[in-house]
Amino acid sequence: MAAARPKEIFLLTPGPLTTSKATRTAMMRDWGSRDTDFRDLTQRVRARLVALVHGQGSHVAVPLQGSGTFAVEAMIGTFVPKSGKLLILVNGAYGQRMVKICQVAGRAHAVIETAEDVPASAQQVEAALGADPAITHVAVIHCETTSGIINPLAEIAAVVERHGRALLVDSMSAFGAVEIDARRIRFDALAASSNKCIEGVPGIGFVICRTTALDKTAGNAHALSLDLHDQRIYMEKSGQQWRFTPPTHVLAAFDAALDQHESEGGVKGRNARYARNCKILVDGMRSLGFVTLLPDHLQAPIIVTFHQPADPRFHFETFYNSLAAHGYVIYPGKLTKADSFRIGCIGQVHEAQMTGLLDAVKTCLRDMGVTETGPAKRAA
Amino acid sequence: MAAARPKEIFLLTPGPLTTSKATRTAMMRDWGSRDTDFRDLTQRVRARLVALVHGQGSHVAVPLQGSGTFAVEAMIGTFVPKSGKLLILVNGAYGQRMVKICQVAGRAHAVIETAEDVPASAQQVEAALGADPAITHVAVIHCETTSGIINPLAEIAAVVERHGRALLVDSMSAFGAVEIDARRIRFDALAASSNKCIEGVPGIGFVICRTTALDKTAGNAHALSLDLHDQRIYMEKSGQQWRFTPPTHVLAAFDAALDQHESEGGVKGRNARYARNCKILVDGMRSLGFVTLLPDHLQAPIIVTFHQPADPRFHFETFYNSLAAHGYVIYPGKLTKADSFRIGCIGQVHEAQMTGLLDAVKTCLRDMGVTETGPAKRAA
Repeated sequence: MAAARPKEIFLLTPGPLTTSKATRTAMMRDWGSRDTDFRDLTQRVRARLVALVHGQGSHVAVPLQGSGTFAVEAMIGTFVPKSGKLLILVNGAYGQRMVKICQVAGRAHAVIETAEDVPASAQQVEAALGADPAITHVAVIHCETTSGIINPLAEIAAVVERHGRALLVDSMSAFGAVEIDARRIRFDALAASSNKCIEGVPGIGFVICRTTALDKTAGNAHALSLDLHDQRIYMEKSGQQWRFTPPTHVLAAFDAALDQHESEGGVKGRNARYARNCKILVDGMRSLGFVTLLPDHLQAPIIVTFHQPADPRFHFETFYNSLAAHGYVIYPGKLTKADSFRIGCIGQVHEAQMTGLLDAVKTCLRDMGVTETGPAKRAA
Repeated sequence: MAAARPKEIFLLTPGPLTTSKATRTAMMRDWGSRDTDFRDLTQRVRARLVALVHGQGSHVAVPLQGSGTFAVEAMIGTFVPKSGKLLILVNGAYGQRMVKICQVAGRAHAVIETAEDVPASAQQVEAALGADPAITHVAVIHCETTSGIINPLAEIAAVVERHGRALLVDSMSAFGAVEIDARRIRFDALAASSNKCIEGVPGIGFVICRTTALDKTAGNAHALSLDLHDQRIYMEKSGQQWRFTPPTHVLAAFDAALDQHESEGGVKGRNARYARNCKILVDGMRSLGFVTLLPDHLQAPIIVTFHQPADPRFHFETFYNSLAAHGYVIYPGKLTKADSFRIGCIGQVHEAQMTGLLDAVKTCLRDMGVTETGPAKRAA
């Protein structure tokens, strides 16, 4: 049975995550969705998102109601025409989800799959594009939340550009905490959401589009609600109104979260805090005997996958509930091949929470009587 | 130029609308989307929605990220198979939107269109179903927000049932304030959203489905994100988790709004307050010389369309900004054939706000020097 929860809970999860009080307080006001104030808010948020990738003048941000997956599906449906073909680089569940989107939306696709602890390979993309001229677009997950691995976006983008194909990026878990410079990395579209490294609340996805590429996508989308071309045209001709009811409070929170992102020093500042969180977490867990799935050079400072201990006294649900009773909500594993769990480094969490978590882990292990924290079979 | 806005603003709009402080305060906490607490919240909200239509045991509520239109598109895509044909009853923009959804999603459809001030006709449906055996489904807007008209849902449902076809209802603006009894009105699916008469914040749509009908819809959907069958199966096999990140704060606000709906006496209590608001509004505006689009027997107590005054000194934008400066945000018209504006009766607004609005209207008219408030050409 789960123990009682403390009043203050920290979400060490990949989003929804712990938001600041200032972000949540921005939701304490109602907005008329067609009113001037809200239209100004929409315009401001769109401009800030473009600026975060240095895309002023060349790119446009199109927000979309729903979760990050809605934005990814909208990106694929809007950018890959019915006659196109998408090469999908898969090394986890979010790559697999893109495959499923193509199946449902009826888009031809090919897949290059690597293991969950192996990054996508620019060399393999090079070979595939050389071999299959039918491929019009390539899709890559920037940071695969399944494992926490970072894929080599810049290298892949260079290969795709050299072959004259278009790149679509799912940057859900990376955007805002990993530098993306649209002047150097050429993509047609890059999707993310409000509730990851910008630290807003969930309810809005967005796609940053190369404007001249988006201009050519009229009529492509497989669903009206997911048509980014239509969404953008309507916004621009209506003075920044949304086609369909926007989640007004969520957008206000997102704008407040963007304020705080800026105050923290933008992408650089946010990355630094997350990297510190990640180092405290990984060092601390290793000192307790836990083993990470990934070597450090493949680990994004977003979410860390740990192998489950071999000790038969370790029981994940007990561990989860016990940590939650201490105020720390962690995340189950999603690996297909090994028992694991994940702990996030993102959101309004700092050194105090990471060390607090490590103390709670120690206590839980002691309470469970777990002594062997390494995995059954050591990862390579 | 717009005057400064007062601190307290009332949205006399069809949703997003004025919410209560208790509803907004429910957003001041973060939730782990895969955590037990949030799963309990999901289960509770789903059960409450089914209970509101007396569908316990026969129906299931499937919530969906996004706006109401996302839910309507999901309903059409999930329920109407690729081999099906949808008869759409149109008397406003939301009926037209269903036509557009069918065009994009590739669903055969037929349309019966009546004027914006004429309700959909069960007799015309009877004739169309008799004449076209290819029609598998019929879609109707319960209350068309374009005008505020109420369509005869019960009569249409009876005809559709007698012909052995399936009924899909867009009850966006009516659900929660107009009685719907699923034991008497047979529908396969009925869509609405969090931010209308339940008075939550925007960000979630939902579809109440006849369970045996939903069971037969596997593989129909045209978009992964909009697949209600998949969404429901996943929720039920995963212990009430969402397939993709849910708008956690919006769901918490929705649950709080459902509490208040219940305290007010459910659908009956809410309807009574809205009917009072509507009567004060219509009587007051008529006493100032304004003319409503609809006769009273076709008017739902949700949103009222008024003809714009013929007086050349009347200028809608000035009127809108002036009312907003008094704290009342109204809504532009959406009629295709006449200049109009709309004022909502829904949300956390009461007698004091309706009379306050009427006072503000008087002041604005005086300031503009408008004396002729009737329309250029009197509505029939």
